[in-house]
Amino acid sequence: MGEIKMEYQHGGDIYTNRVTMDYSANINPLGLPEGVKKALLQAVDDCSCYPDSRCGKLRTELGSFHGFSKEHIICGNGAADLIFQIVQVKRPGRALLIAPSFLEYQQALETVFAEIVWYDLMEADGFHLSVKPLIEWLKLSGQGIEMMFLCNPNNPTGFALEKEEMKELLDFCGEKGIFCVVDECFNEFLDDPEAYSVLDVISSGGYDHVFVLKAFTKIYAMAGLRLGYGISAAEQTIEAMNRIRQPWSVSSLAQAAGEAALGETQYVKETRRLIICEREYLKQNLRDLGFLVFDSMANYLFFKDTRKKAQDEEKLLYRELLDRQVLIRSCSNYRGLNHTYYRICIRQRRENDAFLAVLKSILTKGE
Amino acid sequence: MGEIKMEYQHGGDIYTNRVTMDYSANINPLGLPEGVKKALLQAVDDCSCYPDSRCGKLRTELGSFHGFSKEHIICGNGAADLIFQIVQVKRPGRALLIAPSFLEYQQALETVFAEIVWYDLMEADGFHLSVKPLIEWLKLSGQGIEMMFLCNPNNPTGFALEKEEMKELLDFCGEKGIFCVVDECFNEFLDDPEAYSVLDVISSGGYDHVFVLKAFTKIYAMAGLRLGYGISAAEQTIEAMNRIRQPWSVSSLAQAAGEAALGETQYVKETRRLIICEREYLKQNLRDLGFLVFDSMANYLFFKDTRKKAQDEEKLLYRELLDRQVLIRSCSNYRGLNHTYYRICIRQRRENDAFLAVLKSILTKGE
Repeated sequence: MGEIKMEYQHGGDIYTNRVTMDYSANINPLGLPEGVKKALLQAVDDCSCYPDSRCGKLRTELGSFHGFSKEHIICGNGAADLIFQIVQVKRPGRALLIAPSFLEYQQALETVFAEIVWYDLMEADGFHLSVKPLIEWLKLSGQGIEMMFLCNPNNPTGFALEKEEMKELLDFCGEKGIFCVVDECFNEFLDDPEAYSVLDVISSGGYDHVFVLKAFTKIYAMAGLRLGYGISAAEQTIEAMNRIRQPWSVSSLAQAAGEAALGETQYVKETRRLIICEREYLKQNLRDLGFLVFDSMANYLFFKDTRKKAQDEEKLLYRELLDRQVLIRSCSNYRGLNHTYYRICIRQRRENDAFLAVLKSILTKGE
Repeated sequence: MGEIKMEYQHGGDIYTNRVTMDYSANINPLGLPEGVKKALLQAVDDCSCYPDSRCGKLRTELGSFHGFSKEHIICGNGAADLIFQIVQVKRPGRALLIAPSFLEYQQALETVFAEIVWYDLMEADGFHLSVKPLIEWLKLSGQGIEMMFLCNPNNPTGFALEKEEMKELLDFCGEKGIFCVVDECFNEFLDDPEAYSVLDVISSGGYDHVFVLKAFTKIYAMAGLRLGYGISAAEQTIEAMNRIRQPWSVSSLAQAAGEAALGETQYVKETRRLIICEREYLKQNLRDLGFLVFDSMANYLFFKDTRKKAQDEEKLLYRELLDRQVLIRSCSNYRGLNHTYYRICIRQRRENDAFLAVLKSILTKGE
């Protein structure tokens, strides 16, 4: 039961489905960087030793990369591992989640029996989050909220808040004693990542109530390896997480890959160029095909199938595509959405053209 | 703070120490099997995809290997991952731990604020666990105990209980409603593993209160990869664990390595031959050097430095060896032990001779 639920909750399930074209997982379309692959092949020989339980070298390098000392950094078995850990450590009685957003937050909060309060984004607003109304709402209805997750850019919508707006929200939460987890796992895919990251905000002091999540998984196309990290201005938050985690949560291969990935600056630049171009291309083409495409700023697009038959269980776009071995992410298991909402990743032009061709063949079928 | 504690709690810390000879980590001395290495090198190319969150193929193969259907099996990011999960699921108010034993159990129980009751093994009994006295003790003093960890063979002592004795204990716990975690992570290193495993006991029905832990880490020398698994006769236990874990806890590389490892039967046989021979060799030599060596049945030896100066902080065997870049496991952080107790792994003859030579040079120094 639990398993089936998990299988359908996420993208990238190429194991139970027969898939030749996966548009469901938001991974860098350039694939594993050559430098990372080389590092992995070398690291295979060291697999017999236990990994460094402190990820000392990787944390030092992440520290230089982001301008934090390594005492403020923790590595995990993917960002998901750290979501569960921070929830275990903070054990909020009541927590705020924004809908729609990444499903893992809810699952983690349920393990500590937290009461979840929902703040629903509106389709009429393009599912955009606006800080001022959220603060007003918190003032009125936010009693007892101890923790809050902010996915920026948001998943599945792709909308991102600029850091000045985030700062306003974090400042308010600081005053109210609300601990904030800011999930920036897709930040590196934005056109101007720094304009949206709160890392330099929290480094300025007074932000001990903030924990920022980052992942290697997506931007370096390392989803199979499992490596995420978190940064907090509060050393005591990192220490508390270290006390409750298993010692060897990050494999030695993931550590070696992470160290190599940080040198791949050219690859990241190329990625950004590709995403900017292909996002616009896919967006325009989907709109031309009649879909309602929302304004994603990330490496994935969120859209609605507004055709009359979009609601017909038998003829769901998801189903029609899967019959042609193309997997997209149905958003039907997100709060506030249904099976006419979808998320697709952005890939390279040749793949995108092939994907669009399949889409067109479905839409024109029987016309 | 939390970090320092973890660094010293375990063997295999070759990252903060300068080590040329590691005798602290209980890993197969034959190193990564060739078949596993080959599978890993091939799997590097698939690292960009998300791993199968259900570990479907690996669990099916583990099922055939052990004679269970895959619904009774769960894979984890090392066995340690599953220790934390089973504790999260069962949330015992009070749990029994046997001392000395693997330290992770206590750390996991503390995350759910369980009260820990200790059953101390006696040096006079060679730190052997006897089932009848334990059952008598449980009848008298076991009120309210809801969970119990049994490490078999035990770590760090290497003593193992035969399955008939284990069955007696499991039967008693079943009547009393005590959930038992049987940690068999070192079972495969025993001369006759089947005589000590409870897997065929629990497959006979009536053992829904038992969860058996297994690891690839040790027997296949894959410590850097992180892969463990658990087997329960109760599907609902596995389902409950699946509900609280993160979906992608096991990397795709670990899954590929695990699938390949199950074919390495010749390697496992060779390992057993080597361990039988070298355990006796090291044991005899350590005894000749004057150490009190306990009767380990596993791939590691537990001994006591009984020399007069063994307690001298400045001249600890651990320290003297580390000065020569040899790392052994000090057992000073195990309940009931102190810094005159040590654990070493068993390696190949040439390495063991080199290790013994360093030991001798320390003991004869200044004579």
